[in-house]
Amino acid sequence: MTNWGKNLATMRAHAPLVQNITNYVAMNVMANAMLASGASPAMVHAEEEAAEFASFTQALTINIGTLSPAWVRAMTAAAQVANTVGTPWVLDPVAAGATAFRRETSAQLLTCKPTVIRGNASEIIALTGEAAKGKGADAADTVSAAENAARILAQQTGAVVAVTGPIDFVTNGTEAFRIANGHALMPQVTALGCALTGVVGAFVVGQDPLEATVAALAYYGLAGEHAAKVAQGPGSFAMGFIDALHAITPEDVNNGAKVVAT
Amino acid sequence: MTNWGKNLATMRAHAPLVQNITNYVAMNVMANAMLASGASPAMVHAEEEAAEFASFTQALTINIGTLSPAWVRAMTAAAQVANTVGTPWVLDPVAAGATAFRRETSAQLLTCKPTVIRGNASEIIALTGEAAKGKGADAADTVSAAENAARILAQQTGAVVAVTGPIDFVTNGTEAFRIANGHALMPQVTALGCALTGVVGAFVVGQDPLEATVAALAYYGLAGEHAAKVAQGPGSFAMGFIDALHAITPEDVNNGAKVVAT
Amino acid sequence: MTNWGKNLATMRAHAPLVQNITNYVAMNVMANAMLASGASPAMVHAEEEAAEFASFTQALTINIGTLSPAWVRAMTAAAQVANTVGTPWVLDPVAAGATAFRRETSAQLLTCKPTVIRGNASEIIALTGEAAKGKGADAADTVSAAENAARILAQQTGAVVAVTGPIDFVTNGTEAFRIANGHALMPQVTALGCALTGVVGAFVVGQDPLEATVAALAYYGLAGEHAAKVAQGPGSFAMGFIDALHAITPEDVNNGAKVVAT
Repeated sequence: MTNWGKNLATMRAHAPLVQNITNYVAMNVMANAMLASGASPAMVHAEEEAAEFASFTQALTINIGTLSPAWVRAMTAAAQVANTVGTPWVLDPVAAGATAFRRETSAQLLTCKPTVIRGNASEIIALTGEAAKGKGADAADTVSAAENAARILAQQTGAVVAVTGPIDFVTNGTEAFRIANGHALMPQVTALGCALTGVVGAFVVGQDPLEATVAALAYYGLAGEHAAKVAQGPGSFAMGFIDALHAITPEDVNNGAKVVAT
Repeated sequence: MTNWGKNLATMRAHAPLVQNITNYVAMNVMANAMLASGASPAMVHAEEEAAEFASFTQALTINIGTLSPAWVRAMTAAAQVANTVGTPWVLDPVAAGATAFRRETSAQLLTCKPTVIRGNASEIIALTGEAAKGKGADAADTVSAAENAARILAQQTGAVVAVTGPIDFVTNGTEAFRIANGHALMPQVTALGCALTGVVGAFVVGQDPLEATVAALAYYGLAGEHAAKVAQGPGSFAMGFIDALHAITPEDVNNGAKVVAT
Repeated sequence: MTNWGKNLATMRAHAPLVQNITNYVAMNVMANAMLASGASPAMVHAEEEAAEFASFTQALTINIGTLSPAWVRAMTAAAQVANTVGTPWVLDPVAAGATAFRRETSAQLLTCKPTVIRGNASEIIALTGEAAKGKGADAADTVSAAENAARILAQQTGAVVAVTGPIDFVTNGTEAFRIANGHALMPQVTALGCALTGVVGAFVVGQDPLEATVAALAYYGLAGEHAAKVAQGPGSFAMGFIDALHAITPEDVNNGAKVVAT
């Protein structure tokens, strides 16, 4: 399987409407990354409308970065609707292990059967109930240290689990891939991981979740590599990264994807 | 009437304090667009202070992009104060037709007599109670399909109605203008429509609402044209757009405005 | 004392986890400015977790830019925890004098003994109960007009007080410094003052608050000077500013700091 670019082409052909319940820090850059990629993002999180919107969106993403009780209710209701109508949804368990509120919310959302779970190593480890090292949004564990947790989590939940870092690891509990695309400046720009969750949500619409997630990560990391070529630092990198998401073609992905099955 | 630049000059001379109750996605880029244009934005939405702030602001803008019950109360209270003290205010009915919560909130805010209503075609159609095609923040109807709805809405509410898109349409119910400034990259950057609402709010301070709205749209679209000349994609376009809002002079607007009375 | 660069080196060696309860406009640029500087920001404001997070963060910053009653409770609880466990915290009293809600919240937070208070001239004057001219987030008073208020506020609260503007003034009530670094484009970019508060929070971890605050302001202003060299306007300035925060070395600060003791 080397034609990862076709997943990008399929996503762009769908130009899917993706509802995102995400944190305040990420909202703007996530919407811009999704628009640049070719999706149609909608940031709809209010308890009064999130579930209604989830009934017609093509994908849903939920990110626990900045929580409140009303948002947790909206997240749960939207995820349940997505589950019921068969709409794919992606969970982003930001800093899942940091506080009791986050641990409880993560556990509750896992019962709503996410299609994909995307987090850094510390977050994925925390979801399995193990002690993780990261306290904030930044990982303090290595991706390889989270591989076992990712396999267990995938088997327990039925989700595709993506651990992102210098070399990403994606598994459905039996098959697994490593993706080596990316650049060291990516974690220097806030919310690029959150924005990736939105791009994964767009990719999984009408596509195999494991394959679409791997392709999304390769595409996203490749955009980081392109952006780094002209960046003077994290500010110009962030700008060039959006340009690259827009410019990269399926052929670029086919040529540049660094994916290996494990 | 070809001297659209004088409205920009007047706005910059006022450097008006504009209160914005806007969505989370737009707040930062809206504030930056308004600062670059020459206004003084204030993002004040809390129920505990929005109405008090509305009593001394020079203009108010209300955007329903990310709603909650407390915000709807703050919006209504602020709009009522603006009405009472005669402060101009601009309504941005983001995704007005998407959910029941948005339809109800829009209808309630229309009773507070906005000075200007600015939306895309699907949003303006939705405000008149007709079935619009757009479900998210992106328009799925053409501007020309919304012209009749815009005229009716202007007549019903007394507001100037601006439908923005590839060619904008602005009417007060009797007179109407089309503005052909702009660039295809503008809808690829999130919240540039929301930010325009803030710029319109700044322009209408102490100026004729119809004329000021037309001038604001020409100026804003011209900034898009300038930014596109050096952009490599939506990321560098967004940056260059803020630079262009800052650099464009009244003379540039006089020379570059593509406005026709209909 | 001319070795202001060592405070930057110490901050980067700490790479401190800093909890920020800040406004919606600032969250993204604040996180990016802190990451670019070398800190690890965490935007954690929910009432359900803010105090818990404050028990293990290395510094806390509180910004009243966009308030709600739940947030005020979270701010107060987090500040009290910081006080109890001896964690430094920085208060940013955005538009403190504009509404009753802000005046009351500011007064309540002052009782939680901030380590540093950073604001513009109008905000610092408002905190002392005097009538300030600024109504929004922009200052309408000069820094020099706020010097006396700053000294009084420092003596009353025990905090280091930083008044930022064209020439910053920092005092602990007895000693005082003026910092002449910076550029006129800085107030043209929204939330750069808010973001500075986060950088100050990172600097004070394990360092003398007066010295660390002065060094943070010199470093930050110097980044503005660097960014201005390549900027075409406020958009490209904002991008270059983040690059400059990342690129500037302790040696650059030693060579470029314009600090005088008064």
